[in-house]
Amino acid sequence: MTKQELAYQMQKNASEVEDALQQLLPKENANNPLTQAMRYATLDAGKRVRPFLVRQFARLYGGDDRIAMRFGCALEMIHCYSLVHDDLPCMDDDDYRRGKPSCHAAFGEATALLAGDALLTLAFSVISTDPIATPAQKCSAVMLLAECSGWNGGMIGGQMLDLLYENKQTDEQILNAINDGKTGGLLRCAALLGCIAAHASESEMRAAEGYAKNVGRAFQIIDDILDVMGDRATLGKPIGSDAENNKTTFATLYGAAGALKLAKDYTDIACSAIEGYDGSDLLIEYAMMLLNRKK
Amino acid sequence: MTKQELAYQMQKNASEVEDALQQLLPKENANNPLTQAMRYATLDAGKRVRPFLVRQFARLYGGDDRIAMRFGCALEMIHCYSLVHDDLPCMDDDDYRRGKPSCHAAFGEATALLAGDALLTLAFSVISTDPIATPAQKCSAVMLLAECSGWNGGMIGGQMLDLLYENKQTDEQILNAINDGKTGGLLRCAALLGCIAAHASESEMRAAEGYAKNVGRAFQIIDDILDVMGDRATLGKPIGSDAENNKTTFATLYGAAGALKLAKDYTDIACSAIEGYDGSDLLIEYAMMLLNRKK
Repeated sequence: MTKQELAYQMQKNASEVEDALQQLLPKENANNPLTQAMRYATLDAGKRVRPFLVRQFARLYGGDDRIAMRFGCALEMIHCYSLVHDDLPCMDDDDYRRGKPSCHAAFGEATALLAGDALLTLAFSVISTDPIATPAQKCSAVMLLAECSGWNGGMIGGQMLDLLYENKQTDEQILNAINDGKTGGLLRCAALLGCIAAHASESEMRAAEGYAKNVGRAFQIIDDILDVMGDRATLGKPIGSDAENNKTTFATLYGAAGALKLAKDYTDIACSAIEGYDGSDLLIEYAMMLLNRKK
Repeated sequence: MTKQELAYQMQKNASEVEDALQQLLPKENANNPLTQAMRYATLDAGKRVRPFLVRQFARLYGGDDRIAMRFGCALEMIHCYSLVHDDLPCMDDDDYRRGKPSCHAAFGEATALLAGDALLTLAFSVISTDPIATPAQKCSAVMLLAECSGWNGGMIGGQMLDLLYENKQTDEQILNAINDGKTGGLLRCAALLGCIAAHASESEMRAAEGYAKNVGRAFQIIDDILDVMGDRATLGKPIGSDAENNKTTFATLYGAAGALKLAKDYTDIACSAIEGYDGSDLLIEYAMMLLNRKK
């Protein structure tokens, strides 16, 4: 597996996910700001990392790609709703997202709030109406998605912890709890949705979870390092904003070199979790790519 | 069935739903504003109309009350999240709800937003983890809940329409579309969740839907009439606020007497839909009570 092959697979995935989302989202309707906002927040955006992971784990364990694609799209809707709500004035108050006006900047706060709620709701509709998966698979997927994106160790739980520790000094344990929820929740969900699509065994699920959890931690640490070291243009946000905000990160706790060592360790653990499975080279290359990224 | 018996049954239901919600919500934890806000927004509040309908339709068609109770609690979480988000400054900007500070007034906007998201998410977890229902029942319930609370003719769709027609003159067709979504969506969901808990037949489901849809319309019209005629103290909001806001309602379209006639007609249709079923007297008494309420 070369970097070029990985890049090709990721590009192919992004384009296929875009097509699938087009089918699952409300149709284009210029008279309905709600559905326009739902489309605006979801389409033509992002690298589709989560659906990529769902599909790669389904492939690794011999699952049906059509089910994986649909589960992946549901998960992407959860990711996109969370960005819409995160950007709202009462949260991060960001007027820009991926180089264009954020959803509320484009459609107003009320519509953005409702569009986020509607995407969150639609995600569960998309899973429960899958025409191929069994009812048991769909139930497991709904349960998993709700848990990984919810209050108890999931995405919303991580967001709340992050709010609580904003502008406060903290430690590695709290940082891991924040990151395991906020970033890790949906990555873990992605790997395990792929497992459900493939009727994976307990040990296959443990391997997938080990990969996703540790890739998520490495990913977040690299983000923290890039905030200190990175280049404003490539990172897309002001450099050093974490330090200015008096925010504890792995980079402020251990310095860039120490944090990088930690990210390497997590990446190693992630890769060893799955290296015994035939066809895991793409996921291993992916973990390395995340570790070595410069933006 | 007397009014007293209905009142007793409703009171009993409210107390049982409260106990069930206590079990399903996060535990009391003074250090976690997110879970405190989720509890605050859900517990000790409201008449539990929606769980009441779920359980009554399950009973009518011979379903398991434990499943109905759990589905009813999930639906109540959706109802409560929608009130939290509705009260936010970017929506109705209400600082009070049921005589106490609204969720954002008590916990801040960011926490209220997340608590709403978390309740919406938890509702799907509650259904998918029911220990008694079959996977097929749980899938149907998830699908139904997502549809009735979503963008396409569901609750969020109705809220968006309501926003679009705020301060605009409109007509009966638009009013029905707003009300069928905003109020009717979750009432229809309640009746049909009861049907799912009871493995109801197609004709039983049609009867339940006919009841819920028409009860919902009558309910909304009575609300409109009370806004014009009611007494500020019993209604709990300023009288005539709809007219002041230049808002078209059934009362402004047809006058109080004409609107009351319409509400009676809808109530008649609702009652005839289910009167052929043994044990429907309680649901019929309930429809009459909603029609004749003075607040």
